[in-house]
Amino acid sequence: MFSSLKNSATFKQYQLQAQQLLQRGLDQHIKLAVTGLSRSGKTAFITALVHHLTEQATKQNLPFFSVIQSERLIAAKTVPQSELDITTFPYRDGINSLKQGLWPSSTERINTLRIAIKYRPASGLRAQISETQTLLIDLIDYPGEWLMDLPMLELNFASWSWQQLELLNQSPRLQHAEAFLNHIAAIDWQGPVDEQQLTELATEYQGLLRKFKDELKLSVLQPGRMLMPGDLAGAPILAFFPLPEVTQAEEGSMYHHVKTRYQAYVKEVVQGFYQQHFSQFDRQIVLVDLLDALAQGHDVFNEQTQAINQLIRHFSYGKSNFIKRLFQPKIDKLLFAATKSDHLSAHHHKDLTLLLDSIISTAKNDLIFDGVKIDTMAMSSVSATTPVMVEQKGEKLSCIRGKEIASNQLMTYLPAQPPMRPLTVQEWPQHGFQFPAFYPDVGSNNGIRHIRLDHVMEFLLGDKLK
Amino acid sequence: MFSSLKNSATFKQYQLQAQQLLQRGLDQHIKLAVTGLSRSGKTAFITALVHHLTEQATKQNLPFFSVIQSERLIAAKTVPQSELDITTFPYRDGINSLKQGLWPSSTERINTLRIAIKYRPASGLRAQISETQTLLIDLIDYPGEWLMDLPMLELNFASWSWQQLELLNQSPRLQHAEAFLNHIAAIDWQGPVDEQQLTELATEYQGLLRKFKDELKLSVLQPGRMLMPGDLAGAPILAFFPLPEVTQAEEGSMYHHVKTRYQAYVKEVVQGFYQQHFSQFDRQIVLVDLLDALAQGHDVFNEQTQAINQLIRHFSYGKSNFIKRLFQPKIDKLLFAATKSDHLSAHHHKDLTLLLDSIISTAKNDLIFDGVKIDTMAMSSVSATTPVMVEQKGEKLSCIRGKEIASNQLMTYLPAQPPMRPLTVQEWPQHGFQFPAFYPDVGSNNGIRHIRLDHVMEFLLGDKLK
Repeated sequence: MFSSLKNSATFKQYQLQAQQLLQRGLDQHIKLAVTGLSRSGKTAFITALVHHLTEQATKQNLPFFSVIQSERLIAAKTVPQSELDITTFPYRDGINSLKQGLWPSSTERINTLRIAIKYRPASGLRAQISETQTLLIDLIDYPGEWLMDLPMLELNFASWSWQQLELLNQSPRLQHAEAFLNHIAAIDWQGPVDEQQLTELATEYQGLLRKFKDELKLSVLQPGRMLMPGDLAGAPILAFFPLPEVTQAEEGSMYHHVKTRYQAYVKEVVQGFYQQHFSQFDRQIVLVDLLDALAQGHDVFNEQTQAINQLIRHFSYGKSNFIKRLFQPKIDKLLFAATKSDHLSAHHHKDLTLLLDSIISTAKNDLIFDGVKIDTMAMSSVSATTPVMVEQKGEKLSCIRGKEIASNQLMTYLPAQPPMRPLTVQEWPQHGFQFPAFYPDVGSNNGIRHIRLDHVMEFLLGDKLK
Repeated sequence: MFSSLKNSATFKQYQLQAQQLLQRGLDQHIKLAVTGLSRSGKTAFITALVHHLTEQATKQNLPFFSVIQSERLIAAKTVPQSELDITTFPYRDGINSLKQGLWPSSTERINTLRIAIKYRPASGLRAQISETQTLLIDLIDYPGEWLMDLPMLELNFASWSWQQLELLNQSPRLQHAEAFLNHIAAIDWQGPVDEQQLTELATEYQGLLRKFKDELKLSVLQPGRMLMPGDLAGAPILAFFPLPEVTQAEEGSMYHHVKTRYQAYVKEVVQGFYQQHFSQFDRQIVLVDLLDALAQGHDVFNEQTQAINQLIRHFSYGKSNFIKRLFQPKIDKLLFAATKSDHLSAHHHKDLTLLLDSIISTAKNDLIFDGVKIDTMAMSSVSATTPVMVEQKGEKLSCIRGKEIASNQLMTYLPAQPPMRPLTVQEWPQHGFQFPAFYPDVGSNNGIRHIRLDHVMEFLLGDKLK
């Protein structure tokens, strides 16, 4: 009897279910957030991460990712996500683009993708109970522009306006902002609300932000959703802008209306993002395109430095009672990655890391103090160039070779050396920095190449795969 | 002392505030929802409604709107909306288009616009307390496609699938749906989930719905958000489709995944719309383009008839315990308006009303029984033609004249006569119905003309302006 029960389909099913339940209890789950300003390479990073984990997970390709180095990885694959109302990250489109030698088109909203990594635990309880374990990773890709709004959480409308008007009255913004500043100066903000006028001014301010972003390449652009409104396009909650302070503004006045919209934005949009998403993240990688900032000149580089430091303050939640009251964030590892290191000679990668490191050094100390592990790396999700040695007048030069976008031809360059720390205006080289842009290089034999993506994986995931 | 206090600025302010408070208590506020399938003329309707109320509110222009007929309207204007996260209806763009002789571009999402109507109350308490009153009207414009999802509220995934597969297996859908039906028949839905396959099938189903809408002009298209996804583009919550029933589908199986998405859609999207918006509406106008449906032929006309009747069932909330449990809708007046009546000879307007009336006759009785006032009208928000008499062989023909879109020329037509009731396939005229399309006619002297828009205003708003 017993033996027949043990062999019956029902018994086998129970056995399977019990094992599944036990295993599920041990399985781990982390939310890994990926951000960066637009064009910092978020889509390429996630596409490459998933590709190398699922299709090129070899010792040769990812030597510094310990689960692979110690031959404990069984397999990784994408699995259905649990949050059904968030766009699925378009991995297939991304990898198809790369395989055709094109950069994947960028995403504009929050995206997610879930990967399951099946592995053999190295030791400890996990190894004793089960031979295999699964780590579920929710990759969450969101625009860095949303993060740039976080400082608004601690500012009322008057203080925010003051900060923004300060910025608008300085170079490089001032020459573009004069008309807008004159328009807001000419209006009686205590007077009764004129909806049409508010809409026109909001549209003008939106145009300014877009110009700051597209032409001036600036990064402090608030409200960030004005630049990627999605379903909020045309809604009053996005139709606000900074105003000189008015002390007595009655309900129904122009000033009161703009202020109400600011407050609604902070509460519903900024705080909404914090509560719904940000506070759920376990780990965060911030991608930074320092080379592009260098190429744009001192002003842009300077602003990016400021922006990164403003951001870090918000990861340092241990210090802010205000933010603690709103929610309890739980990010325990934070990685700043300078992308496109393949655009430099190999012996200059270190300089890029030093530059990033010196930008965030002060803020970094606060974070370490709060128990958040923080690191900086120079890396490349998808290599666009190959290193080549060129002999010139008996001297060996460490160059890079790739298909340049501007000329659409294979070109060899001796890349500029990035500075090891932020330069002052006086120190800035007279002709600036130039870094040509290349198409991704997908050598037929080597597949898609990366630089230090395995280091990134080890920092962000390694301890969860022990 | 007293007199000086009475004249002081502070006292005057108190007096003003007290009066404002009293007045606010008497002011009324209604939410008037405007819907209809895409291209039924929602944007033109709202633009015309606002235009005639704010800029052409004369006795000559709106003789049947009693507040104007009795000379009690003081003024109407647009004022800022209170729901800040909903797109503002683009009235300025709409009116500018019309004034240039072009139809305004259509809106894809929910839009809102608030109008304040200041008037002298006719009698009763209002007239005794205050000389003027204000009625605030929130116009809410939403896609009729969202309403078409309401039947899903009462269906589980298996029943919904069964209904949709029935439709897909019938003409005119079948000839387009065969490939899709074969694809879903070839898959083991009890097998483990394959995310990529689900995405591909969802994309295929979305393509089918789009074809049904754009080419076949059908109206029962579920899930409606697949056709206008907004921020949900690419999210799994929209990536479902009907499936043949599987009785044993374990968690992790293909079937279970699709079913979970269906349930999430019904709960979050359909029920979300019901609770957040629909249940707040006081009055509803549904615009129906019967002429276009007639021109598309018997199948399309028949489907529109079905769709309208399905809709009416959902206004008849008195009957459904299920919907009552979810929320308490409060619509007390419902108007079905057949648009484009200016495309007919004046003496055929009555036929259009009769046709609409006969379509909804059964369902209408149920609604009246529930205490909802319901009416049907043939109207035209913006006239595109002028009536002209043409003498042919001694006979006087009642024709219309307008700038035809197809030829881009002024043309005179003797319009077809619409049937007074739905016709069977056998009765349908061999060559069908033709109704040419015209540009809006903005005669320089007469402004923007309408047909029976004042009747519409009186039905929807008249009793609130007594």
